[in-house]
Amino acid sequence: MRMNSVALPLAALLAFQAAAQPAAAPAPARSSAEIVAAAPASAWARVPDDALLVMDLANGATVLIALAPDFAPAHVRNIRALAMARWWDGTSINRVQDNYVVQWGDATEKKPLPPTLKLPVAMAYERPLAGLDFRPMPYRDVFARQVGHVGTWPVAVEGGAAWLPHCYGMVGVGRNEAPDTGSGAELYAVIGQAPRHLDRNIAVVGRVVEGMEHLAALPRGTGALGFYEQPAQRIGVTRVRLAADLPAKERPAVEIMRAGTPDLDAWLTTRANRKDSFFIRPAGALDICNALPPARRVPAR
Amino acid sequence: MRMNSVALPLAALLAFQAAAQPAAAPAPARSSAEIVAAAPASAWARVPDDALLVMDLANGATVLIALAPDFAPAHVRNIRALAMARWWDGTSINRVQDNYVVQWGDATEKKPLPPTLKLPVAMAYERPLAGLDFRPMPYRDVFARQVGHVGTWPVAVEGGAAWLPHCYGMVGVGRNEAPDTGSGAELYAVIGQAPRHLDRNIAVVGRVVEGMEHLAALPRGTGALGFYEQPAQRIGVTRVRLAADLPAKERPAVEIMRAGTPDLDAWLTTRANRKDSFFIRPAGALDICNALPPARRVPAR
Repeated sequence: MRMNSVALPLAALLAFQAAAQPAAAPAPARSSAEIVAAAPASAWARVPDDALLVMDLANGATVLIALAPDFAPAHVRNIRALAMARWWDGTSINRVQDNYVVQWGDATEKKPLPPTLKLPVAMAYERPLAGLDFRPMPYRDVFARQVGHVGTWPVAVEGGAAWLPHCYGMVGVGRNEAPDTGSGAELYAVIGQAPRHLDRNIAVVGRVVEGMEHLAALPRGTGALGFYEQPAQRIGVTRVRLAADLPAKERPAVEIMRAGTPDLDAWLTTRANRKDSFFIRPAGALDICNALPPARRVPAR
Repeated sequence: MRMNSVALPLAALLAFQAAAQPAAAPAPARSSAEIVAAAPASAWARVPDDALLVMDLANGATVLIALAPDFAPAHVRNIRALAMARWWDGTSINRVQDNYVVQWGDATEKKPLPPTLKLPVAMAYERPLAGLDFRPMPYRDVFARQVGHVGTWPVAVEGGAAWLPHCYGMVGVGRNEAPDTGSGAELYAVIGQAPRHLDRNIAVVGRVVEGMEHLAALPRGTGALGFYEQPAQRIGVTRVRLAADLPAKERPAVEIMRAGTPDLDAWLTTRANRKDSFFIRPAGALDICNALPPARRVPAR
């Protein structure tokens, strides 16, 4: 079985599948990369243009963030309003704390917020599980009763509530001590081991789907909490737009593999049970933070 | 209770403890930083000079790595021999894969290994739990039956075996497909969400105890697996020594908080139940990869 798991070339596997498994059975012998490459268009959900944030940095990097209105509707509404008001243009990345977060916004904390924002945003860091097509993974989690996926999102579940976990690449709303102080203007992305203790204490509003490597490789700040001590160390945020607000030909098109498809099921099973020739002992388990569904630019079809 | 947890200044707390809790009770009202600052010398174990690797990079950074001979004795023997032979001097960091690992060694893969190495190293990616003073944490783990600490190390346990988990900052031995091909010359440090699927598939030999922020902020390689595509992108490794092999006054002195002390117990409890005024809902749980015992330079006493 170990032998079979690595010996078949992809073409042979696909032929075998077509002949013997026309239905939805996962194919654990394929690598996760092969599963992604072979997944049909129906396995992917395009990120809506009004839920894709395009952030250009002064160092030339672009970061794409998918927003999660189903999990943080009020915060996402404000984030859209901030982007439409071009509020982030000319702000900066001010904090890079190793093994924790990269945070951006107005370094002066004095820039007036646009009048289109609805403030304060009531604390709403989880939502009812009811109404969601939750697909649990059969693996333990340290912090929640169950973890799995809803649509294109990793989700943690407990006691009838569902929330987006603080995984590497997830984006949240910075706030002060009072729970309703997160306007959406101050955002952060997780760049280290998942700080899941923040779950249900902060609004998670999305996920970096392209450009994480640019955020995670920024020099760490040497001030308290990783803030840059010198203004010159900050990285300029030159422009933040919703994709919907960009000219059509400049709009990036991103898609994410959907839960409930045989492709994502196969991808998850393969990630939990790596059987290529390198592995002596497949884990038989998968952390939700190693199970963010594959995201990519929409290919020509 | 929420109020009490943040209102008492440290001095008052310590006085209260001295009066009312002379024994070993954890003090959940203190922050983890306060627990570290107040821990007595007896709470700390100094990393032995022959188990501390000092790695100087061409960009001016120094990285300190504590070695774990109790968990990977044969690999640590080879790593000591490589450092004594000055084998890494003039090698480089060749691979930086986002959310995964930074890897260093001989980019040519042709540099002869010193004759003092014992090769091949038999596969030994776990050890018997028996004989270890294992202190379990009362929280779930995704990958192992139990997790906790032995001495200064995070440890995963299942079926009578114990091993070091692949957490952010842990250091492992690169190898080829055959399990006995990891000489110790090719090392990596984890820079993202814990790739715990590597547990028991690779030798974990230590932990970066200072300088992680320099490794984790390196530009990501754009080649397959994050290898740098141009030789000029590699970061030179100018010198790697055991602290024991440095002149006494150049030797860094590092200590790590020990399991089985009231201080580490309190630190773990506090990390699992954050009650400062920011937190609405303490997690009541802690991932072993967020529970690497505090490490620091030995202070003047």
